[in-house]
Amino acid sequence: MSHSVELLAVGTELLLGSVANTDAQLLSRELSGLGLNVYYHSVVGDNPDRLAQAVELAKSRADVLVTTGGLGPTCDDLTKRVVAQAFGRQLAYHPACAEAIRAYFAASGREMPENNLQQAWLPEGCQVLENHWGTAPGCAFHSQGRWVVMLPGPPGECLPMFREQAVPWLAQLSEGVIRSRTLRVFGWGESQVESLLRPQMDRLTNPTLAPYAKQGEVELRITAKAEDGQAAQALIAPVEREVRSVLGDLVYGTEENSLERVVLEGLKDQGLTLGTAESCTGGLLAKRMTDLPGAAAAFRGGVVSYVNEVKRQVLGVPQALLDEQGAVCEEVARAMAQGARRVLGCDLAVATTGVAGPDSDEWGNPVGLVYVALAAQSGCWVRKLNLAGAREGRDRVRTLAASHGLDMVRRWLAGLEIVPEL
Amino acid sequence: MSHSVELLAVGTELLLGSVANTDAQLLSRELSGLGLNVYYHSVVGDNPDRLAQAVELAKSRADVLVTTGGLGPTCDDLTKRVVAQAFGRQLAYHPACAEAIRAYFAASGREMPENNLQQAWLPEGCQVLENHWGTAPGCAFHSQGRWVVMLPGPPGECLPMFREQAVPWLAQLSEGVIRSRTLRVFGWGESQVESLLRPQMDRLTNPTLAPYAKQGEVELRITAKAEDGQAAQALIAPVEREVRSVLGDLVYGTEENSLERVVLEGLKDQGLTLGTAESCTGGLLAKRMTDLPGAAAAFRGGVVSYVNEVKRQVLGVPQALLDEQGAVCEEVARAMAQGARRVLGCDLAVATTGVAGPDSDEWGNPVGLVYVALAAQSGCWVRKLNLAGAREGRDRVRTLAASHGLDMVRRWLAGLEIVPEL
Repeated sequence: MSHSVELLAVGTELLLGSVANTDAQLLSRELSGLGLNVYYHSVVGDNPDRLAQAVELAKSRADVLVTTGGLGPTCDDLTKRVVAQAFGRQLAYHPACAEAIRAYFAASGREMPENNLQQAWLPEGCQVLENHWGTAPGCAFHSQGRWVVMLPGPPGECLPMFREQAVPWLAQLSEGVIRSRTLRVFGWGESQVESLLRPQMDRLTNPTLAPYAKQGEVELRITAKAEDGQAAQALIAPVEREVRSVLGDLVYGTEENSLERVVLEGLKDQGLTLGTAESCTGGLLAKRMTDLPGAAAAFRGGVVSYVNEVKRQVLGVPQALLDEQGAVCEEVARAMAQGARRVLGCDLAVATTGVAGPDSDEWGNPVGLVYVALAAQSGCWVRKLNLAGAREGRDRVRTLAASHGLDMVRRWLAGLEIVPEL
Repeated sequence: MSHSVELLAVGTELLLGSVANTDAQLLSRELSGLGLNVYYHSVVGDNPDRLAQAVELAKSRADVLVTTGGLGPTCDDLTKRVVAQAFGRQLAYHPACAEAIRAYFAASGREMPENNLQQAWLPEGCQVLENHWGTAPGCAFHSQGRWVVMLPGPPGECLPMFREQAVPWLAQLSEGVIRSRTLRVFGWGESQVESLLRPQMDRLTNPTLAPYAKQGEVELRITAKAEDGQAAQALIAPVEREVRSVLGDLVYGTEENSLERVVLEGLKDQGLTLGTAESCTGGLLAKRMTDLPGAAAAFRGGVVSYVNEVKRQVLGVPQALLDEQGAVCEEVARAMAQGARRVLGCDLAVATTGVAGPDSDEWGNPVGLVYVALAAQSGCWVRKLNLAGAREGRDRVRTLAASHGLDMVRRWLAGLEIVPEL
């Protein structure tokens, strides 16, 4: 029987809604990957009584307790004090921790406020979890039949500390594993994907198959529980084949391979370069390409032509065209993409022009009407998109327009039809 | 005595870490604004027994229970069944809800799967909370001394439904209000801001003063509890004056006024236009400006010159300069900004060139070295930034570089020193 986990976050800022409890999300993924069942997330504020009750509750209903937050000097080390007491332990001074804290400040050239050394007090007999990303050390101990891990709150410290320091300690618990395989789909909405795969989703129990809508894309996650990684993979493989046979080339990638990453790898493989000409996406396409380290190997740059004069002067879009049809039309998208190819000296160029909203443009074009063009030496293709749908916002119109541009490049690189019927 | 709230989210996807519990964050803000004390967040999966226990627990420790998720047909209406049972109520069929669901599908032109009508079953005697953003209606009722609100899980439905439908119902509970004032600070890190304001933060209890680090900026939130909005504002005002006297012109805005919004408003007020020339930020600056509706009134566009040839050919950066000093130097930043002013025909232009990482460049410049230039008719200014710090990532270097560019424009527009000592 596998272990049950409760994640307990401590911090009034969570209860005021100042920040989201992203630690819970990130740690849940990691813990599931270790084969542990996360059954509860809880959040309490910086209040010793309510925290003490929450710890007692967690002891009663889970055998692994992972706390986040409440470790630093500004919160008076609340979590450590309360959790130690709940398990009948004293706090003890750890000189090595004090040294690490001093060294952290020395390395960053800042003076150390004396109260930082408070962080060197940890429950007696615990395993110290070193913090190489901040000052507050964490700790782990086994007591009264429970496994306890305490981590600092900032996600930039919590997650790497968990992976580097807590996972080896938790390895003593794992029986069996959970493995996931993610297939990434672009072109259809979640409900379309779901309706096509409904039979599989209803039939399957191990592995399970579940869709997640994300930024206008759909992630399909196949999740298997098994004795070891190999057995889990053996459960996943036939389901992946089945899904791919249903969705075909709408599956563009796996795991964390975003559209932009697939495009960058494809360009590098074929020794080609890309450029952009953006109106309604306003730099988002270029930004997404350059989010990737090493983008300069294939991405040359872009022109954000947010006003018509820049479309004309920098990209060479004919003034007559802009006068006659306005900026949002197929011909302007085409001229922008071809202009970008020429001006930027790239093999492929993507252009976007459309109405991101919230208002329709002066030509009466509706919010969500976007033309996306791809220019290559061999030709030029345009997708006309209507992204208006039910309450699509400005961000979503822009994100989807940029994704369509990337998808056109992906399909061109893969030799697929560039404007398929969807 | 003010009411205590527990937020209970239902959904296995939360426990697997597939999504973050953003509903809890958004609703916590709203509920605090109503003067209610959110004391607990809880999450359980799609499991009737654990959900039933969580509902009993919430009944025992809070007087307002707000649930999110578990309302739709795909989850078998788990939350409604379990919560109704915990309060000894039957589910009853609401014909008006069934009509609304039918109408929702008719309006979107999709066929309605029959199981959607299950959503028209709600606890007897409840107040129906209409869902104009999706299909699952919510509900609210008062029973056994507790106030219960059930909302659907998708944030795009949960939050607007809460505001439009649940807030009027919850108005019966509110005694006193919580009001916040947010001051936005750019230029100093959280620890610097905190150390300067430590006396105030330690002294104040109502209002409280708390810093939140966010995307390289610091938000200072002043939060007051009082009988009504006016009394709360009267508590906040003197603290705001005190903070402003300490931080001076590093306070660039209030509430949700981002740097880009302050810049856009300032440009529009003065009838000036802006353009960008981006290397390391790769389109992020332009993207942030065009995130704002109506940006075209002052933002003309940009050039993303990710490779040197584009810097030379499009922006006119001298080849000799690139050969002698490489792309990451003060002179190239200057030439890019001046080139962008000319090419884009704008009054002000911002340029970025630097090493975003993860690796240093071929000239041996370290990750995090960035030059940001502002060109105007009256002159050209450059900030040299070292954003390497402790494990700053690529995203953070890019975000901070873009923010520095926007901050330079803000300070130019406000007649402040453009490269202050920080």
